[in-house]
Parts: sequence; structure tokens; C-alpha cells
Amino acid sequence: MTTSREIHLAARPRGVPRPTDFSLVEVDVPDPAEGQVLIRNAYISVDPYMRGRMNDGRSYVPPFRLREALTGAAVGRVVASRNERVPEGTWVVHDRGWRELALSDGTGLLPFDPSLGPVSTGLGVLGMPGLTAYVGLLDVGRPSEGETVFVSGAAGAVGSLVGQIAKLKGCRVIGSAGSPEKVEWLRELGFDEAFDYREADVREALGEGIDVYFDNVGGPTLEAALAALRPRGRVVACGAISQYNATELPPGPRNLFLVVTKRLRMEGFIVSDHYDRLPAFVTEVAPWVRDGTVRYRETVVEGIEHAPEAFIGLLAGENVGKMLVKVGPGS
Amino acid sequence: MTTSREIHLAARPRGVPRPTDFSLVEVDVPDPAEGQVLIRNAYISVDPYMRGRMNDGRSYVPPFRLREALTGAAVGRVVASRNERVPEGTWVVHDRGWRELALSDGTGLLPFDPSLGPVSTGLGVLGMPGLTAYVGLLDVGRPSEGETVFVSGAAGAVGSLVGQIAKLKGCRVIGSAGSPEKVEWLRELGFDEAFDYREADVREALGEGIDVYFDNVGGPTLEAALAALRPRGRVVACGAISQYNATELPPGPRNLFLVVTKRLRMEGFIVSDHYDRLPAFVTEVAPWVRDGTVRYRETVVEGIEHAPEAFIGLLAGENVGKMLVKVGPGS
Repeated sequence: MTTSREIHLAARPRGVPRPTDFSLVEVDVPDPAEGQVLIRNAYISVDPYMRGRMNDGRSYVPPFRLREALTGAAVGRVVASRNERVPEGTWVVHDRGWRELALSDGTGLLPFDPSLGPVSTGLGVLGMPGLTAYVGLLDVGRPSEGETVFVSGAAGAVGSLVGQIAKLKGCRVIGSAGSPEKVEWLRELGFDEAFDYREADVREALGEGIDVYFDNVGGPTLEAALAALRPRGRVVACGAISQYNATELPPGPRNLFLVVTKRLRMEGFIVSDHYDRLPAFVTEVAPWVRDGTVRYRETVVEGIEHAPEAFIGLLAGENVGKMLVKVGPGS
Repeated sequence: MTTSREIHLAARPRGVPRPTDFSLVEVDVPDPAEGQVLIRNAYISVDPYMRGRMNDGRSYVPPFRLREALTGAAVGRVVASRNERVPEGTWVVHDRGWRELALSDGTGLLPFDPSLGPVSTGLGVLGMPGLTAYVGLLDVGRPSEGETVFVSGAAGAVGSLVGQIAKLKGCRVIGSAGSPEKVEWLRELGFDEAFDYREADVREALGEGIDVYFDNVGGPTLEAALAALRPRGRVVACGAISQYNATELPPGPRNLFLVVTKRLRMEGFIVSDHYDRLPAFVTEVAPWVRDGTVRYRETVVEGIEHAPEAFIGLLAGENVGKMLVKVGPGS
């Protein structure tokens, strides 16, 4: 028996979440029973899609329950095991989320090979955000060499990888982000064009036009991208962070009819439908990360008690790259 | 030398077109020169997409010019030929449009085999509207047996064929239309459900949900269909007749974010990109039309001088099935 701290959903946020919507709770964690393992988390992941689960109502994942720990991606090390398939010392990515210690029956654990890189990358560039970028760009967007790819939220964990993979595949890449510092980083990453969507006229910034739009934000940027897409262009519908805090849904793009006239394809996807692509993703992307061809950034907040602030900051765009909370030992 | 009457665009309509936006003009037509043929039209086609071409501005087809004959689909017989590839007596579908006699250099003529059915079907169920339904449903929507297909504008030339093909492919079919008479006809065609969108709550009428939405209308019906689509559903973006007369574009669907959460695919297409499917279409659909398995209706207006009224009536939903203007001899 030991104790662990975890973050509960105390109230369903209305609009922008507030610290009082969360509570820090200390709980007893029993020793693992037969078949179970105990995981000490090193990092927990803070992801935009979690905002949707804080609402009541149907989505592609069920809502979080009140007065229970928030679940989501975390990476940790097995510190006690009564399950021979997951020996002590194994690093695993799992979905038990916002807690220091997690007891697991061994299912749904994805081993992480620490020789690939720091274990934090198991939640970022080599984890679900990385696979999201890879599958969304290559399998849904399907850009050809020489085409122009535009990605919004380009300084985030997903967006920054989308842009770099697109460059490596021979595309011209445009990125948008929400601060001069982020835009500067996109230029360092080799984006051909980068702009601050709060300062620029987005349609103008897209110049001669685009072939693929990887959409992380929705809203007016989507409308501008629809206007800029060339015939047979594609919209990879990955997220709509501009709307996650909305209490009333804003109107959609006025120019959606361009989907007909320009024969556009707009397609949504959920990374968990594409786990079959994990091997190809790791094989192709991990070497790029190791040799520095692909670069990534992390914004790390220390201490599980600060996870709610980290999440609120994420929705306000305060992160560059992957937003993480460090909750225990590990690189 | 002979004379012909044709309909010119006199002014670019603002909102709903008025008769004064068109003019009837009598012109001289010379005898065919070497390589030319003279076609006497039997029917001209009146199509919703023509409204877009009456505006100035870029679309997938250039705008009509003022004070020239409106172009669009027509079917007629070659009455004089100096082109050996197109002998006198041949029935052809062409795009020279709203005139009684058309002089052609022989390019862009599609022979129509009158043994397939009345020549009017070359503009409807066996012409571009038919191919639009076939390609849009099967190649873009890709329904599986047992799935539910919803089609709006279901009593139109395209929609009525979409529903019937979907039934023949083993789907459950729901159709919406704009009058009790049209709804009654959809029931006769074997639609599983049919409703008048002006009377019904569209979302409610879609019941348990749909897998494919064949969109001819846009607007609130699209918003309701997005809400009703099941995960991995598809929107075949074919048209948005509800918006063609709009002088200001209305907001798009508020729930477009469902494309992400339900992994929807929304895809536009233009029939002229899919002429390679004409042989498969004719081989599969023509026998169904001949033996009555597939039924169609035509709304025929007599006399080229009434073509503007026919077009205005089409946009107001006054047609059932294909809207045609009879301008010369032919079945």
C-alpha cells in the first residue's frame, strides 16, 4: 500500500476552464494483485481534445466523470509487477492519465523503448501526437511532391511535425501560429512561410494557394483555407481548438460550398483508428528524431498539482510544442 | 442560311433571376462550312448549376457572357453535315445550349443512341444528371449494402436516380423534397422514407442515423445531416441549391466540427472529371431504364421563349424530375 496524488474533474467547465473545475486528491494505492502492475508516471500529457471530454454529451470518446481522475496519455515505469508480460522496469505509455501512480491490469499498455529517445517523446513526437501528424498528413492529406501544405497550430506537438514531414516529402510548407516567438521557431524548422494568425490576413498569407490544409484550429482560419485551396485540395480535419471553449457553437465557414465547386475533400480521422501504422511511423520518424533531422520542443510544467494550469495554458496557446507535466522520475 | 432563336443573358441576376435578365434574340445561321455540322435541337436542359455561371467571378466553369447565348446541355439531330465523322441524322448531346439551331465544328459532341430510349433521356437519366448520380453515389459516397443513404432534392433528376440506385445496391434510402406531391412520388419509387423538408424536423426525420448523405441543397439540411451521420459517414457534396440565389453567403453548418469527432469524409466532385465512367454507367443503368426498374420523370416546357421561366421555376422547385425545354422535333 502506498499513496498517490491525482487530479479529479470537480465541475464541468462552462467556457474557459478555471482552476476550481479541478481538484487535487490524495488516494491510497494497493499493492498489485495477481496480473496487475504498478506504474510510476514520469510525465502526463495535456491535450486539447480533453476539453471536449469535460463536457457532458456524446463525442467519439465518453465524457470524463465528475469526482474521478482525468484519464489521458501518460508515460511511466513499471515499479512493481505481478504480470509476467510486463516486467518491472518496463517503460510504458498508457491512458490512465492524471495521477502519479497507476495500477493496471496490463491491458492497453504500449511499451516504450527508451533507446529511441527521452521517455517524454513517447507522449509527443514519437507518441500519439507524432502518429496523428504522420497518419493525418500522409494517409488522409496525401500530398504529392511539389504541392503546398498549410498547417495551422503549427507550433504545437502535431503541427510542428506535420510541417517537418511535409518538407521531407518535398512539399512547400506554410504554417500559422499565435505569437512572434512561435513563428520564429517555425522558420527555424524550415517552414517556407510562417505567420502569426493574430496579425496577418490569413487568406492573403496563403498567397497563390494551397493543396492540403491540415486543420488544428477550425474557425476563420478554416474559412480562409477553403478560399485558398486549389481544385482537388484536401482538408485534414484534425481539430478545432478555436472552438473548444465555445459555449455556443459559432457558425461554420460561409464558403463551404467551395467543396463542390473546387471538388475538395474534407476528412476527419481519429488516431486510434490507425494504430496499424505505428510500426511504419516509428521506423520512418524515429531515426529522423535521433539524428536531429526532425526537431521538437516540449513545454514542461513540474508537479501534478500544476496540471490544471498547464491545461488552461495549453488552450490559451501558452505552449510551444508538446505540453507535458512532469510528475515523477524519468528523462 | 437560315434563322434560329436563342436566349441571351441580358443582365446578371441579383438574387432570384427575373425574366428581364434574359432576352430572346433571332440570329442568322450560315450553312455549315467544311468540317462543320448543323444541329437542330430537340430539347435544351435547364440545370441548377447554371445559376452560378450567371454571376461574375471565378468558379469551376467560367461565367456566362452578357449578350451571348447561354450555353449548357442540349440534345439534337444533325440536319446538315460537312463532317464525315458526324453524318446527317446522328443524334448528339452537346453543350451549345439555349438555341434552336447550333453550328458545331464536330468537337465535344456525344452521340446518343436513340434505341436506348427517348432522346430527352440523353439530357436526364441517361445523360449528365444520371452520370452525376452514378459517380457521386458509387465512387464518392461508396455505400455498402445495408447502409442508410439520405438524399436531398430527391425528386430532382439527380436525386431520384441516386435513391433508386442506392435501393438496387441494397441500401436503406431516405429522401427529402419540397412538396407533398414530390414526397408521394419518392414513395412510389420505393424510397424507405420520404419527407417534405418544409414540414418536417429534418434531424428527427433522419431517425437512427445515416451513413451517406448525398447533398444537393446545402444549408440547414446539411447541418441536420451532419448531426445524423454515423461515425465514418460520408457527405457527397453535389450541390447547394438552397444558396444559389443568395446575394450574401449564409453561415455554414455550426456543427462542422463533427467531421473530426465522427471521422466524416465530405467530398465534392464535378461530373466532367468522370467521363471515363460513362461506359460503365450506360451498361448498368440503361437496361434498368428500358425495363422500368429505374423510373424517371420529366417536366417539359414547350418553346425556347419559355426557357427563362423554366429556369426560374427550377430554382423555385417547380419541377419534378428533369426540367427540359422542348425546342424542336424529337421524342
